[in-house]
Amino acid sequence: MNILLTMRLLGALLMCLAVTLLVPVPFSLYFSDGATPALLLSALLTLIVGASMFFSCRNDSELSLREGFAVVSFGWLLFSCFGALPFLFSGAIPDPVNAIFETMSGFTTTGATILTTIEGLPESILLWRALTHWLGGMGIIVLSLAILPMLGVGGMQLFKAEVPGPTADRLKPRIQDTAKLLWGVYLLLTAIETLLLMLGGMNFYEALCHAFATLATGGFSTRNASVGSYQSAYIDWIITLFMFLAGVNFSLHYHALRGRLREYWRSEEFRCYLGITLGATLLLIIINQGRVYHSLVDNLRYSAFQATSILTTTGFGTADYEQWPVVAQYLLVLLMFIGGCAGSTGGGIKVARVLLLFKHAQVQLFRLIHPRAVRLVKLGDLPVARDVMQAILGFFALYIGVFVFATLLMTACGLDLLSAAGAVIATLGNIGPGIGSVGPIDNYAHILPFGKSVLILCMLLGRLELFTVLVLIFPSFWRK
Amino acid sequence: MNILLTMRLLGALLMCLAVTLLVPVPFSLYFSDGATPALLLSALLTLIVGASMFFSCRNDSELSLREGFAVVSFGWLLFSCFGALPFLFSGAIPDPVNAIFETMSGFTTTGATILTTIEGLPESILLWRALTHWLGGMGIIVLSLAILPMLGVGGMQLFKAEVPGPTADRLKPRIQDTAKLLWGVYLLLTAIETLLLMLGGMNFYEALCHAFATLATGGFSTRNASVGSYQSAYIDWIITLFMFLAGVNFSLHYHALRGRLREYWRSEEFRCYLGITLGATLLLIIINQGRVYHSLVDNLRYSAFQATSILTTTGFGTADYEQWPVVAQYLLVLLMFIGGCAGSTGGGIKVARVLLLFKHAQVQLFRLIHPRAVRLVKLGDLPVARDVMQAILGFFALYIGVFVFATLLMTACGLDLLSAAGAVIATLGNIGPGIGSVGPIDNYAHILPFGKSVLILCMLLGRLELFTVLVLIFPSFWRK
Repeated sequence: MNILLTMRLLGALLMCLAVTLLVPVPFSLYFSDGATPALLLSALLTLIVGASMFFSCRNDSELSLREGFAVVSFGWLLFSCFGALPFLFSGAIPDPVNAIFETMSGFTTTGATILTTIEGLPESILLWRALTHWLGGMGIIVLSLAILPMLGVGGMQLFKAEVPGPTADRLKPRIQDTAKLLWGVYLLLTAIETLLLMLGGMNFYEALCHAFATLATGGFSTRNASVGSYQSAYIDWIITLFMFLAGVNFSLHYHALRGRLREYWRSEEFRCYLGITLGATLLLIIINQGRVYHSLVDNLRYSAFQATSILTTTGFGTADYEQWPVVAQYLLVLLMFIGGCAGSTGGGIKVARVLLLFKHAQVQLFRLIHPRAVRLVKLGDLPVARDVMQAILGFFALYIGVFVFATLLMTACGLDLLSAAGAVIATLGNIGPGIGSVGPIDNYAHILPFGKSVLILCMLLGRLELFTVLVLIFPSFWRK
Repeated sequence: MNILLTMRLLGALLMCLAVTLLVPVPFSLYFSDGATPALLLSALLTLIVGASMFFSCRNDSELSLREGFAVVSFGWLLFSCFGALPFLFSGAIPDPVNAIFETMSGFTTTGATILTTIEGLPESILLWRALTHWLGGMGIIVLSLAILPMLGVGGMQLFKAEVPGPTADRLKPRIQDTAKLLWGVYLLLTAIETLLLMLGGMNFYEALCHAFATLATGGFSTRNASVGSYQSAYIDWIITLFMFLAGVNFSLHYHALRGRLREYWRSEEFRCYLGITLGATLLLIIINQGRVYHSLVDNLRYSAFQATSILTTTGFGTADYEQWPVVAQYLLVLLMFIGGCAGSTGGGIKVARVLLLFKHAQVQLFRLIHPRAVRLVKLGDLPVARDVMQAILGFFALYIGVFVFATLLMTACGLDLLSAAGAVIATLGNIGPGIGSVGPIDNYAHILPFGKSVLILCMLLGRLELFTVLVLIFPSFWRK
């Protein structure tokens, strides 16, 4: 581990963060919400720390695997600490654990909140809250399509973005080029959604905040009652559409924008993702019809919104699904585990992994009947290499292991079984609202600081595909 | 698929069942409980059907893989149907679905009951109920140590019994020899426990029933309040000890009886199993001390009993653990997933598989840091072959998949989330009592017939290591 190089890169990232901390300042001035000093102070502090790390740690080595892991994990952690400063300085969230929880929830695009009332907070602070989502989403797209595939994390090799770029195998230029192209797509989709939401009656500020939270599959809203408070079918459907898009592999969007629309359909993961979205919506409609909703139009609107919101791990709400029949709630919990497509901003286990797990189990069954037959697991037309399949199976076992262990810790904090499991999957899957006492109309404020710390770690682990964080606990990682 | 040969073998098995149906008759006469006609009629009917299957389907082919799967799965199913006859004919359980549920619960050594009161039923019927456990346990020992390893199910290759026998690779003699040796051990342990329980004040009938249920890790008791009704520390400890022994690979007991006691310690799975038992007991003691129990002696007794009862998937009760703190209940749920050792009568995922899953995840992490290093997963000193590891990972994915899907069906039957998940894991893991509305002082009577059918299938799937049953749904299985 080259600690100097790691520090230097983290310093550079903090300086970038300092710049983004200035974005809410014009809003603060426009709304005269009194948060300008807090934002400026946060930016200044972040800049000073970042610059001193950057300039004091001079090192010109090439970036290797290990520094890659360290920069990613500590980068997210540092961002969550420094990104929490505006909440602390403005007095919006006076408690440091709460502030870090909220910021980690932002940068990991989770959307779990400890705020009991959202309306009434300074507008610029709420914009910063939504912006953490959006920045986190930017990070994730590059991470999952350019960085993690190179590090070989959890079978992500499969999802390397196939976008044009120099064929040189040095890390830096390749990542930079991929990043620029995909961020262009991300920015474009955000701009379109903002515009469409403004056409639905939102002002620019609200439209921007909701577009940030949608494209990042985050879920922070500027209203207490989330998207439901707008009571507009148009807004619901626009957000449903963009949540769905945010859950798709962004390199598919890139291809589509270059005219190759058929790439969507060629992707087996996309077809499966579409099938799950439609299937879950249909099931919810059948379950809710006559029980919760009497109009089919309403039923379709609320069921489609909630299925998409949970599957993509956004977590926006237009209905209190805890009032739905148990089987509907359980369906939503299943969607929480699945999550979005690999290479999207969505969390969870990822559609491709779930699909491959099923195929693997099927091949295992097939082999029992035909012991001599050779049958490989395929994704689309491509056979999946054995070690990639092993990595995916290992990821799944680890995911369940982390879920199980974190739930144990949450029950030790006094949560009941359902709420404990709900809180863990809602954070580990980067969804936001869970079930039980952390359901869609509740929040995370009531959890003890120890429990909040566990959930902060869950958000980080889930967002960084577990392995990226867990390698850091190996002593051999730190040896020269 | 050679259907004639399969039918012939199933016929032979039914004739064996007919003989065992006569075992409770002397008890019925001794207690004058009025169930003698029901037992005789059941035996007769079973004999007629068995004999007509056996003699009408003449076939001398060698047994192949496919017939192996079919005989095992349909064998368990047929036993559960014909074994239900005494319950039906005696009027103890008038409803056919309930009777099959109870018998499947017996033969799969689950111990989940639909009976609301147990005391007052004919003694011979309760003996038959306990005997189904014991017969199921006999089946499982041979299945898991001799048959499944040859069929290559779910990584069971690892646990082939290494007992002396002819080295010929033909199926029949090898299975017969292994079976005889292991059944000797099983019978011996049953006899010793019966004796020890009689020394604790039980009469022969009760001691025998409880020994049957213990060695099979079943859990059917002759009392409403299960083992707790005896209120004897001696009995609790004897049963704790024998539950623990029943959760151990029976080929280790075989070696131990031949003087090679150190084989226990040489087995990494045994060490892990012992560690989990002691660790879980210790944690439960810490959680319960001062909250549930004020005397450390009581705490030790009840915590050790419950940890062992759940881990080994027996399901006997001396305490209502739903009154324990949530974290203690959650620990017990975790134990339900783990289960006993491979080659024991215990259910669940099995200690060895859980251990290998952890090791696999660890190796995956290690590979990320050292991409060029070669590091194999080992069990004890032996490296685990890649395809065995793949089979184990596939088993795990399928286990979670079945758990998740069956829970969905149970919520559709109107159960709440906790009870639905609790009922599924308690049957899939062959434990018996679960959590929620199917907790240790509840029963399964209130579940709708559709839900009971789902749980019957869960018991069968869990007991036969999933794959054995699931291969039957492949169309290619049935082709010539």
